[in-house]
Amino acid sequence: MARTQVPLPLVYRLLNHGPATLVSTRDGDRANVMAAQWVMPVDFDPPKLAVVLDRTTYTRKLIDASGVLAIQIPERAQAQLTQEVGSTSGADRDKLAAIETFPGDVLDVPLVAGCLAWLECRVAHSPALDEVARELDLFVVDVVAASADDRYWRGKGIALDTVQTIHHLGGGRYVLSGESVEARR
Amino acid sequence: MARTQVPLPLVYRLLNHGPATLVSTRDGDRANVMAAQWVMPVDFDPPKLAVVLDRTTYTRKLIDASGVLAIQIPERAQAQLTQEVGSTSGADRDKLAAIETFPGDVLDVPLVAGCLAWLECRVAHSPALDEVARELDLFVVDVVAASADDRYWRGKGIALDTVQTIHHLGGGRYVLSGESVEARR
Repeated sequence: MARTQVPLPLVYRLLNHGPATLVSTRDGDRANVMAAQWVMPVDFDPPKLAVVLDRTTYTRKLIDASGVLAIQIPERAQAQLTQEVGSTSGADRDKLAAIETFPGDVLDVPLVAGCLAWLECRVAHSPALDEVARELDLFVVDVVAASADDRYWRGKGIALDTVQTIHHLGGGRYVLSGESVEARR
Repeated sequence: MARTQVPLPLVYRLLNHGPATLVSTRDGDRANVMAAQWVMPVDFDPPKLAVVLDRTTYTRKLIDASGVLAIQIPERAQAQLTQEVGSTSGADRDKLAAIETFPGDVLDVPLVAGCLAWLECRVAHSPALDEVARELDLFVVDVVAASADDRYWRGKGIALDTVQTIHHLGGGRYVLSGESVEARR
């Protein structure tokens, strides 16, 4: 699988339409992955994301220690994987043992193979720094590098006519991305 | 058009999959509407949303004054409307003059007719209160009431087999919601 580097000012276009994500991280010899739907861009350039990561998760514990994470976008074929890593804990078993990963380009984070794009991120604002953010488990992260599967990146965005993103509705139900439409300017 | 009240613990299911939204507000005799894609749930019950509202917009000025807003979910037929209210300013012309609205159930906010659901919200945490939020124009709002078009609400979520949400990819391009899939638990 060949990857294309996504220019940082276009990174928001990977996540703007609200797909489910997989969040992975490593702290020393401990690594993990979970699902996160509550991820959205909050700035264009340099790109920043807001991410809610529950304080009870093992991934959160590792991110609090390492300060780095990858946010990647699964495609339709990974809906079951997304549901599974989102409903089991890395504190109980090594979820990455059965999942193919490859190393980040810039950060020491495992990237999940088969996704359509990968965003390597550094924690910019931890929930610990602010009362409201602490209550909401809300992170702000800087995207420091991003890449996409060559087959699915087309100059200015994801080619959603060739791949479908999954969007969690709740309770294990997902809606897939469908047809694209252009509004008149 | 008949509406159903959406129980507050299920409100996140209106927005969880990342649709584009219309944000409307009123302050005294000034009212306005804009488009916002950067809206996501950040808590379930009571429901809270994170919303990015650019400080240069007229809607933001009114919300800063009134502390209340409605966040509503347009459907496919409103993609052009969404693009238009998202690319023109209420400081230049009264955008609501040509748009049918009806009053909020609980708050003094105009709700846009033809949407599939409406969330009436109070500002809980204004960007002014925090350095990071100020830089990002990031609000946290409490949803105090929510309703959905009867035709599109089915007990626990939006019936996405009967209506399509629109998701802004960037640059006036939208992807529609497509097929739904259920992951095995």
